[in-house]
Amino acid sequence: MIQFDKRAIRTLGIDTPIIQAPMAGGTTTPELVAAVSNAGGLGSIGAGYLSAEAIEETVAATRALTDKPFALNLFVPSEPAVDQDRIEQSNVRLDSFRQALAIDRPDPPVRFAPDFEAQFDAALAARVSVFSFTFGALTPEQVSRLKGVGSTVIGTATTVAEARALEAIDVDMIVAQGSEAGGHRGTFLHDWQDALIGTMALVPQVVDAVSIPVIASGGIMEGRGVAAAFMLGACAVQMGSAFLVCQESGANRTHQQALLEADAAHTQVTPVFSGKAARGIRNRFIDEMSMLGDRIPDYPIQNAWTKDVRAAAGAKGRAEFMSLWAGQAATLARRTTAAQLIADIRSHLDSF
Amino acid sequence: MIQFDKRAIRTLGIDTPIIQAPMAGGTTTPELVAAVSNAGGLGSIGAGYLSAEAIEETVAATRALTDKPFALNLFVPSEPAVDQDRIEQSNVRLDSFRQALAIDRPDPPVRFAPDFEAQFDAALAARVSVFSFTFGALTPEQVSRLKGVGSTVIGTATTVAEARALEAIDVDMIVAQGSEAGGHRGTFLHDWQDALIGTMALVPQVVDAVSIPVIASGGIMEGRGVAAAFMLGACAVQMGSAFLVCQESGANRTHQQALLEADAAHTQVTPVFSGKAARGIRNRFIDEMSMLGDRIPDYPIQNAWTKDVRAAAGAKGRAEFMSLWAGQAATLARRTTAAQLIADIRSHLDSF
Repeated sequence: MIQFDKRAIRTLGIDTPIIQAPMAGGTTTPELVAAVSNAGGLGSIGAGYLSAEAIEETVAATRALTDKPFALNLFVPSEPAVDQDRIEQSNVRLDSFRQALAIDRPDPPVRFAPDFEAQFDAALAARVSVFSFTFGALTPEQVSRLKGVGSTVIGTATTVAEARALEAIDVDMIVAQGSEAGGHRGTFLHDWQDALIGTMALVPQVVDAVSIPVIASGGIMEGRGVAAAFMLGACAVQMGSAFLVCQESGANRTHQQALLEADAAHTQVTPVFSGKAARGIRNRFIDEMSMLGDRIPDYPIQNAWTKDVRAAAGAKGRAEFMSLWAGQAATLARRTTAAQLIADIRSHLDSF
Repeated sequence: MIQFDKRAIRTLGIDTPIIQAPMAGGTTTPELVAAVSNAGGLGSIGAGYLSAEAIEETVAATRALTDKPFALNLFVPSEPAVDQDRIEQSNVRLDSFRQALAIDRPDPPVRFAPDFEAQFDAALAARVSVFSFTFGALTPEQVSRLKGVGSTVIGTATTVAEARALEAIDVDMIVAQGSEAGGHRGTFLHDWQDALIGTMALVPQVVDAVSIPVIASGGIMEGRGVAAAFMLGACAVQMGSAFLVCQESGANRTHQQALLEADAAHTQVTPVFSGKAARGIRNRFIDEMSMLGDRIPDYPIQNAWTKDVRAAAGAKGRAEFMSLWAGQAATLARRTTAAQLIADIRSHLDSF
């Protein structure tokens, strides 16, 4: 077995240092999360868009399928600027997509995102083994409360400065999210354009900057990437795209198929879907919405207003209007089970 | 010793699979190139801006210092669009820098870049052990002529498509240049924005796509990165920033000092210095020239017109007007000798 820093697997109580990334929006079904944890890794519920009630239900459904540890992940909120001009300009373009999808512009969202305090209280009440977060930093008090109920706390950093900020609020571990990663950027102290640091460069710098364990993410798909991450000093990896196409994944099939065929030169980091930068496969939605330049409404306003388009496109298999999150190594993904993916990686690591 | 694909070191006739990147513009002195090769790695003369005569002299000076193999690197030319409006708009902004530096706008350049055919003929005549190139693909005939004089031929790819194109012209090896890399992007089949693929994602995909050996570059600074690159399937690494600050380097001291302090979140890929995208430390030159948006003159026109500003700034230690090329892991660089850097990496690799 290849050598690596064992602190994370000991603290997390897992056999294999592989964390299934908390992909919000229906991908991380209880079946996927439990399959990862049952296979010795750490499954993660992407709960950023779930209500407090849905969090309670999803944790219960997952616990019915596994008695192993798993993580729950939330999005740390920030206050968006409500700019009606931007919202209307975005909607004018969205209307052309709605027309193509034969849907009407919906009424304005009652709220743009679930209530974070209620989500957080649900996470505390659920006493999850691991609580991870992204898009910002919790308060030291929130970290302390999570530890008080027995949760290990993991934050997400995209730069050395963010990693230091997270260590300062006393998280247990840090996910270093490289620029290769699919889906939303965790960046919170910089403009997203300034925080696209490749995994190869980011991980050793974060490892040197903090004393707590570092989890590598971004572009890691299989045994080679996991072994490379260990060489950089990571104690575990977090993988999204590779699990998104597993059989237990709840991701839309059109999305899964697009990811399996995704050329890295056709992925792009863009804020057009949600108002927050995220990496996905370039399509008509990105190309046409990008004409708004920097006038995309803030997260989570844009996320709420594009939801109907993305949902209708997903239901109809219209990839050109979907958010097709994918990392830069997506072509290395294979259609398999979560258990087989983890077994294949273990086998590769054991070969050293 | 850690296990890795030995094809490259056997073909190149070197002991240690470390290639010093061919940094053009005076960094790769005969002293640096020879020190790297004498230490068991492969030094590279960055000859992109050298005349045929200077190539002949530099090769001779290097051969006076080492009898080991080294590489010579050229820039494959492309035809720039000469747009006088763009050139004038760029010069108006450059004039403000010239004023700050107390220099006058020079006469228009007689030529924008050295004659490539003459450079190529000089490389052939020099019968260098290794000929590497970037910014494009040679013709199959050029590759064949190089092989005819005994040179191993290495091309540079930033995407899988570029790697396949290089294999098709029968190069011996490919440098896979990840988005972390400092200096110029080798991209030639895509817009540069579409070809910023992290090393962790790029290397295994290129390894899977071609049958020839792959050299990893981008964000690799020391033993950890080299070991990680081997795990991804690379047969060697190419390192720029780490050698740029070595004692034998000809890089400007102000540049070296800036690199040693470069936060990855403060580097940026930009075409403003040369007309071709390159990663450097953000400064006033980048911020003010970026206001021209996509109206920067093409490479090598912009390169020729900014030369006086960069040279004067370098002479006066004015970092805000210099091209401060740096990779995203530059803070891992240490002021040392090339031989010590290579010995430290070997020691790390031997520890496995």
